[in-house]
Amino acid sequence: MKVKRYKRGDAVSYSLGGELTIELLRRLPDNVKCIFLHPDFRDGAARDMIYSLCSQNGIEIEVSEKPFNILSQKENCFVIGAFSRFERKLDPEGSHVVLVNPSNAGNMGTIIRTALGFGVNNLAVITPAVDFFDPKTVRASMGASFGINFEEFPSFDDYAARFPNHSCYPFMLNAKHRIGESPFVTPASLIFGNEATGLPDSFSRYESIVIPHTNAIDSLNLPIAASIAIYELCRK
Amino acid sequence: MKVKRYKRGDAVSYSLGGELTIELLRRLPDNVKCIFLHPDFRDGAARDMIYSLCSQNGIEIEVSEKPFNILSQKENCFVIGAFSRFERKLDPEGSHVVLVNPSNAGNMGTIIRTALGFGVNNLAVITPAVDFFDPKTVRASMGASFGINFEEFPSFDDYAARFPNHSCYPFMLNAKHRIGESPFVTPASLIFGNEATGLPDSFSRYESIVIPHTNAIDSLNLPIAASIAIYELCRK
Repeated sequence: MKVKRYKRGDAVSYSLGGELTIELLRRLPDNVKCIFLHPDFRDGAARDMIYSLCSQNGIEIEVSEKPFNILSQKENCFVIGAFSRFERKLDPEGSHVVLVNPSNAGNMGTIIRTALGFGVNNLAVITPAVDFFDPKTVRASMGASFGINFEEFPSFDDYAARFPNHSCYPFMLNAKHRIGESPFVTPASLIFGNEATGLPDSFSRYESIVIPHTNAIDSLNLPIAASIAIYELCRK
Repeated sequence: MKVKRYKRGDAVSYSLGGELTIELLRRLPDNVKCIFLHPDFRDGAARDMIYSLCSQNGIEIEVSEKPFNILSQKENCFVIGAFSRFERKLDPEGSHVVLVNPSNAGNMGTIIRTALGFGVNNLAVITPAVDFFDPKTVRASMGASFGINFEEFPSFDDYAARFPNHSCYPFMLNAKHRIGESPFVTPASLIFGNEATGLPDSFSRYESIVIPHTNAIDSLNLPIAASIAIYELCRK
């Protein structure tokens, strides 16, 4: 199979790394197009696992250095999985994390990992935004990308129109409520803005929430704020 | 002033970036050795602020490309501050974050930022560990490194002997208590292990805590787990 550097919107993306690719094979075997092994790949147990999962699912394995040169020059990476993008509709009964114009792939991946870890299995992304299928996002999620429901929306209003029963909680510095002041009403939409610019003032029309912090810092970083919010939503 | 690539233990480290360097000048002017500006640096307000802070504190400014070539080839960086390392003893009355053998500079910086944001102004690090003064750590902290009390210890027992009145809470998957089950007794030591290996079993002798997560993920990432713990410690 011919590989090319991933570009936003491509039909095929890549899992870079052994553990990540094993997660891919376990969770989404029907989406896997091909597995690439580096000629120097030696790891016994992981290698056996990959061969076994590929054989069970009729997936081709190619041993070649070339895909690694194209896809992962800088990383200590000996296994790559090529997979086709997927769509998995948001659950209208479940709570959602909503990221408005996120710009950093590592941040998005970390948030996906935490959300799945607390059973909030739905991620809505308002575009323009970093790409859910970018190999950097997938890698930062440690494979949680393969397990979460995900949809993109061209505007927050489009999202809100689809889920009229969700309670919207935008996280803003200038907010009506402090986190933990009263319980979230579920299903909830926990809404976070861009790393640099936050949410526009127009979100103040909802029950906006602040995570109070000292004035020794400017802000919490985005994955930290989102994770604290998800934790608070799920705590008993 | 002659600069060289930072190595662990060097007497001088560097703040890479304009906002970070302004934080340095505000918080630790006595530690600043020199400020370097890139000849292409044009930012009006930041430039004025830097000149004003340097003038107030008698700090030399050098305009030169060379330090940038040595210290920050890959980054979009136009301001560098050179500062001497500092020691700031942990507060024996305050709660502490204790990182045992952390290996990632970005993670340590993110944890420093969250800790300072919630008023937990004390970081103990058990070596071997990533370097608190590494420019990558400083940068990830967004300047919070300049505001937190920090000490290194060669072993956890050395740390514990210095702070016999602290309640020790190691965070482990195999733990006695779930987070939030009962309030932390302060002053508390919130203890976290290495990113890959966690804490050794010997920490089970303390009141170990787990942040429960679904089995859809292997673990929470370290800054997320530490931030949730700090948040829980500080919530009313």
